[in-house]
Amino acid sequence: MSAEKITLDAVTERMRALVDYEPGAAATASMDHLATRGSMSRARLALSACGALGVDARQSLAIAVACELLHNASLVHDDLQDQDRERRGMPSVWARHGASTAICVGDLMISAAYASLAEIQAPGTIQVAHKAISRAIAGQCADLAARGAARPSQSSHEEISRNKAGALFALPLQLALMTAGLATECAMARDASNHFAIGYQILDDIDDVNSDARNGELNIVTILRARCDRDPVGSAQHLARRHLEMACELAVQLPQGSGATLHELARLLLLRTGQSSISQVVFV
Amino acid sequence: MSAEKITLDAVTERMRALVDYEPGAAATASMDHLATRGSMSRARLALSACGALGVDARQSLAIAVACELLHNASLVHDDLQDQDRERRGMPSVWARHGASTAICVGDLMISAAYASLAEIQAPGTIQVAHKAISRAIAGQCADLAARGAARPSQSSHEEISRNKAGALFALPLQLALMTAGLATECAMARDASNHFAIGYQILDDIDDVNSDARNGELNIVTILRARCDRDPVGSAQHLARRHLEMACELAVQLPQGSGATLHELARLLLLRTGQSSISQVVFV
Repeated sequence: MSAEKITLDAVTERMRALVDYEPGAAATASMDHLATRGSMSRARLALSACGALGVDARQSLAIAVACELLHNASLVHDDLQDQDRERRGMPSVWARHGASTAICVGDLMISAAYASLAEIQAPGTIQVAHKAISRAIAGQCADLAARGAARPSQSSHEEISRNKAGALFALPLQLALMTAGLATECAMARDASNHFAIGYQILDDIDDVNSDARNGELNIVTILRARCDRDPVGSAQHLARRHLEMACELAVQLPQGSGATLHELARLLLLRTGQSSISQVVFV
Repeated sequence: MSAEKITLDAVTERMRALVDYEPGAAATASMDHLATRGSMSRARLALSACGALGVDARQSLAIAVACELLHNASLVHDDLQDQDRERRGMPSVWARHGASTAICVGDLMISAAYASLAEIQAPGTIQVAHKAISRAIAGQCADLAARGAARPSQSSHEEISRNKAGALFALPLQLALMTAGLATECAMARDASNHFAIGYQILDDIDDVNSDARNGELNIVTILRARCDRDPVGSAQHLARRHLEMACELAVQLPQGSGATLHELARLLLLRTGQSSISQVVFV
């Protein structure tokens, strides 16, 4: 079986199996949370890259499962840290099961992600995953610290987005490339994902500018406004466009069309910036 | 270099290096916490078993580091869940750095533990670690749920101790045995560690009976008293003795003296029960 034949349902099923080794409150809450799914962008990035690069089905599934589990772990712990009561239209894990169970759920998912990565034969993948997690955690800590900071800068906003979101967007591509014996291409996958993550975060900020201002959260529009930018939303859109165009440019250069899904995700976000010169690319 | 030559300082140094991939609040707080050390019982169990079994120094260090990191991750998250403000005579991580950073610190340590395990060549070690973590998490959730429960039973107390503490006491022995090609002996290592963990927990309960009663925490003395036991402390000591003696009996049967440190730890605890027929064993 090839990677293209793996369904997102199969990814969900495997994720749920890996958090269900030992019955208990954390396993049950993890299973419930994973059943809600979400966009599964990281699984799609993994499966598309693995398919393009000819990675076998077992390892493709393992990569998709690991990346989705890490993303979900970060959502569960972030929601608790941010005191967000809702996720995917449902009560978030801590809101439903309490803070202590939510801590255990995230821990279980991180551990399960590594249990999935153990299926991959390529050397160095676990170290790369730990580096990505270390970056994501550093980004989250910097994000938390920036709240209420006197005057956060545009460059700190970029660095936080790059670390917090970029690290886990890049990971599926990096692991696919490493498994296909193309580890040298990982730097470009990281660059493309970083630009994508910054563009994605800026568009999110434009949507959330009012609620972020109320909650004292870092927001690029607020940062630009504080710098006396007369059209902070327009400038933010321009910035997002620049990063997403760069993500597209780098994604098409990834070997054998392995960046197709990243390119498509970036192209769809570009449509939200109002202007886009990027057209759909047919990857063969 | 053999496992016996690895110092606990070398274990601490490697743990601190693995949590310091990306600068930030979580890395700094992790480094600070790891500098306080504690008893390092799990590292000592690992190094002693690896030494007895002839495991090479690189893998011995990796096992010791992984087990200690997992233990410390559990302490950091447990302290937050239990709202314990002190650890090792210092403010606990959440008390000093806040709840959000403490969540990130535990996450980082779990991830770092797997980065260490990646050094081990034996197949299946990552799955075994994930099983141990799943058990420890299930134990912690059951412990949290048992607080304020109407009438917790002695058997649920045993199961919680076995999962919560036993899983991470067994892990160093299991990983050492697997790395030495003796995976079939893992079941006995688990049994010995489970008995040790139950005995250890009971003695802890005897010490903490008053504070546990105040905080509504699970305590074997309270359970026995609720069952109209006329000498609950004496009965608890008797129970602890039975489990620790069983731990000793199983530990000496582990191959090539690999259970020597577990035997010694159990023997030292037995001295605290007031009566002990177990004498020091010289493992050769």
